[in-house]
Amino acid sequence: MDVPPAAHAEVLVVGGGVVGLSVAWRAAQRGYAVTVADPSPGSGATHAAAGMLAPVSELTYTEEPLLRLGLSSLVRWPAFAAELAGESGIGVDHRTDGTLDVAFGPDDLAALGEVAGLMEKLSLPVERLTGRECRRVEPMLAPSVRGGVLAPGDAWVDPRRVTSALLAALSHRGVTMVAARVRGFAVEGDAVRGVRLADGRLITADQVVLAAGAWSGTLEGLPPEALPPVRPVKGQIMRLRGAPGFLGRCVRGTVHGSGAYLVPRGDGEIVLGATQEEMGFDTRVTAGALWELLRDARELVPGVTELEVAGVVAGLRPGTPDNLPLIGRTALPGLLLATGHHRGGVLLAPLTADVVAAEIAGDRSPAGGTDDPPVASICSPLRFGGPPRPGTGHFPWTKEERGPSPGRTPGPAAPEAR
Amino acid sequence: MDVPPAAHAEVLVVGGGVVGLSVAWRAAQRGYAVTVADPSPGSGATHAAAGMLAPVSELTYTEEPLLRLGLSSLVRWPAFAAELAGESGIGVDHRTDGTLDVAFGPDDLAALGEVAGLMEKLSLPVERLTGRECRRVEPMLAPSVRGGVLAPGDAWVDPRRVTSALLAALSHRGVTMVAARVRGFAVEGDAVRGVRLADGRLITADQVVLAAGAWSGTLEGLPPEALPPVRPVKGQIMRLRGAPGFLGRCVRGTVHGSGAYLVPRGDGEIVLGATQEEMGFDTRVTAGALWELLRDARELVPGVTELEVAGVVAGLRPGTPDNLPLIGRTALPGLLLATGHHRGGVLLAPLTADVVAAEIAGDRSPAGGTDDPPVASICSPLRFGGPPRPGTGHFPWTKEERGPSPGRTPGPAAPEAR
Repeated sequence: MDVPPAAHAEVLVVGGGVVGLSVAWRAAQRGYAVTVADPSPGSGATHAAAGMLAPVSELTYTEEPLLRLGLSSLVRWPAFAAELAGESGIGVDHRTDGTLDVAFGPDDLAALGEVAGLMEKLSLPVERLTGRECRRVEPMLAPSVRGGVLAPGDAWVDPRRVTSALLAALSHRGVTMVAARVRGFAVEGDAVRGVRLADGRLITADQVVLAAGAWSGTLEGLPPEALPPVRPVKGQIMRLRGAPGFLGRCVRGTVHGSGAYLVPRGDGEIVLGATQEEMGFDTRVTAGALWELLRDARELVPGVTELEVAGVVAGLRPGTPDNLPLIGRTALPGLLLATGHHRGGVLLAPLTADVVAAEIAGDRSPAGGTDDPPVASICSPLRFGGPPRPGTGHFPWTKEERGPSPGRTPGPAAPEAR
Repeated sequence: MDVPPAAHAEVLVVGGGVVGLSVAWRAAQRGYAVTVADPSPGSGATHAAAGMLAPVSELTYTEEPLLRLGLSSLVRWPAFAAELAGESGIGVDHRTDGTLDVAFGPDDLAALGEVAGLMEKLSLPVERLTGRECRRVEPMLAPSVRGGVLAPGDAWVDPRRVTSALLAALSHRGVTMVAARVRGFAVEGDAVRGVRLADGRLITADQVVLAAGAWSGTLEGLPPEALPPVRPVKGQIMRLRGAPGFLGRCVRGTVHGSGAYLVPRGDGEIVLGATQEEMGFDTRVTAGALWELLRDARELVPGVTELEVAGVVAGLRPGTPDNLPLIGRTALPGLLLATGHHRGGVLLAPLTADVVAAEIAGDRSPAGGTDDPPVASICSPLRFGGPPRPGTGHFPWTKEERGPSPGRTPGPAAPEAR
C-alpha cells in the first residue's frame, strides 16, 4: 500500500515557526534543496511571541547555560536582521534600547537586587536605578515603582515580521513550502528517510530537521523513547494599540508573583505578556488569563487602560525537562532536532539556524566566534537518553517504506561537501 | 444639480438596529411599502447588547416611567418572539428564568434592600433571598454573596438572533433594504420628503422614521433644534464560551460601584456587561474596560476565569437627557422618531414598533391592552422643545429638492387609511 513518493528534498524541515524557517533559510543559503512542511507557517508559538531578545534580564540562578546560549544568539541578531531585511525587503523592527526590570514592594526590590548582584558577578552590563530614575527613563511607569535594573544590551524584534521576512527570503531562494500537516516519519531500517503527510503523501529527504515546536513529540513512526521530550507550555498575550513613544523599551516586573512584561513596537503597538500554563494542547484564550495580563500591566504602567485592544492570542511553547533546547543530530541517521526552545525561540533562532545548518553540511568549524557556548553538549538531543539502538527499535513505518527503493544510499547520511 | 429620485417608499426607516427593523416589520405587516436604509443592519448598539428584558431588576428610584414602558414591552415579547420565529424560521433564544441581583458587603445589601422595598411597594413580583438561597439558585455564585433579590418575571433574548430573524422576516415581506449611509433629510417647505444618501442618491418617502440610534442627531438637512437630543453612550461587552447550564438566569450585582451582569445564552455563551462611557463616537475596545468587566464578573462568578473568550465589542447607545426614548411624530410633517432608547432598545422594540406603526397608519386606538402607559406623552419627541415653526427654519436641503416635483401631495402627511 505504498503511496508513490510525492517529492524529494535534500533537507526537509518539519515546522514553519521562527526556528524552522531560520534553519531552512540558512540551509538554502548553503545551496541545499530545502522543503518546509507546515500547514500554516508562523501561526504557532511564534505568532504568540513578544519577541524579546533579553537573555540578561531573563537570567535566573539555575539557568546560566541558557544565558550563554542567549548571549551568543543575541550578538547574531543585528547581522541576522540586516541580512534578512536585505534578502526579503521586510524589516523586523529590531530594537536595541534595552529592558527595564522594575520592583514594587521592598521584597520585590530585595529580590531584584539579588539578581542584579548575580548579573554583576557575571560581568553582565546592567545598571541599578532608583524609582525616580526608572520613571525618568520610562515616564509611564507607576508612581509606586521603587527601583529597577536596566539591561541596556537587551533587544527585541517583531516575531510576525520575522516570519514574514523569512517566508519572503525562502521564496526568493526557491525553497518549497508544503502547506500540510506532517503525520509521522518515514523510516527505513534505522534511518529516517522522510515524512508522511496527514493526507498520505510521502516526502523523502536526505536529512530531516524536526522543528515542530510543542508538537515535536507527537509525530508517528518513531519509538516513543526516540521522540523529543517536549511538552506544550501555553502562553497568552494581548496586543494594545498605543502611540509610538508610549514606552521606550521593554518593561518587566514581578507582580503578584507572576512575571509580566510590556514590549513596545515601532508602530506604537504594546504587547502584554505572558501567561505560562501547563494545559496540554489547549489554545483557548481565557477570561482569567486576560484578567491577569491586564491586572499586572495596569500595576506596571497604569496608562495602558486607555489603549485599544488590538488582539489576544494563545500559543504553545515547546518546553523541555531542563528548559534548554534540543539542537543537533539524533541517534537516528537522517534526523536532526531544532526544537524545545520554550520561551526562547525568537532569541535563539539565529544561533540554532547556524548550528543546524553547519551540522547538515558537516561543517565542524565553530559556527561563530570563540565565545560560542558548546551548543553540541548543552543542547544535545541525546542528553535525555533513550535513543533506540540499531535493530531494536520498533518502527511502524519501516515495512511500509521498504517497498520501492527511493534510490538513495542507505546508512548514515553523510555530510555533503559543497 | 438635482439627482433624480432613485426610489420612493411609503415608509422609509433610517436605521437597521433592533428598533428600526421592528418598526419596519410592523409597518410592513400593515401593508405599507417599506424601505430600510442602513449601511450595515444590526451592527450598531444591538450588536453590543446583552438583550436583557429586565425592567424590574433595572428599576431605580427616579425612573418609574421607564419601568412602565419596560413592563408594557416585556409582556409583548413572548408573542413578538413567537410571531417572529414563525415568519423567519429563526428563534431568538427568548428565556424567561428571571434575573438575580446580588449584594456583597453590608452596604450593598442595605441598598439592595431599599430597592426591593420600592419594588414591593409597586407590587412588582420579587423575592428576597439569603446568600445561601442565592447560591442554591445559582451554584456558581461567589461564596461572598450575602443576599439577593430575584425578579422572576424578567427575561432575555439574543439580540443578534433578533436582528437576523427580523431581517429574514423583512425579506419575506418584500421590504427593500438599502445598504447605504443616510447623510441627511430631504425637506420640501416644512415637510420631510425623504432622505439623501451619502452617495448622493435620493429616496423619497411619504413618511420617514428616524431610528438611527446614537447617530440620530447627526443627520443634515434639519435645523439643529429639530434634531433629537441623543448622545452616544459607549458600552463594551465581552462574550465567553461556557457550557449550557453554567448559569440558569441573568445575574447582576454592584461591584465597586459599577453595575455588572452576566447573561447566559442557550448555547452556553455568557455575556459580560457593560461599561457606560461618555466618549463621543468612539467604538474602540479598551484594555481598561476589559479589565473592569473581568474584575467585576470574577467577583460575582469566580468560575468565569476558566471560560474561553469568544469576543469583545463596543457599541454606542442613544442616550437622552431624561433617559427616556423619543417615540412618535415630530413637529415636522412626514418625520417620526423611534430613537433614544439608551440601554433599553431590545426590551422596548416591540412596544416602540406597535406605537410607531399605529401612528403611521393613523390608528388612534390603544396599541395594546388597557395597562399601556401613555407612550405619546412619556416619549413625546416634542418634550424637549425647539421644533422649528413653519417658515422660519433653515433647511439646507429645501432648494436642492424643489426642482422636479416628485409628484407627491404637499402639506402634512395624512395617515393613510388601509
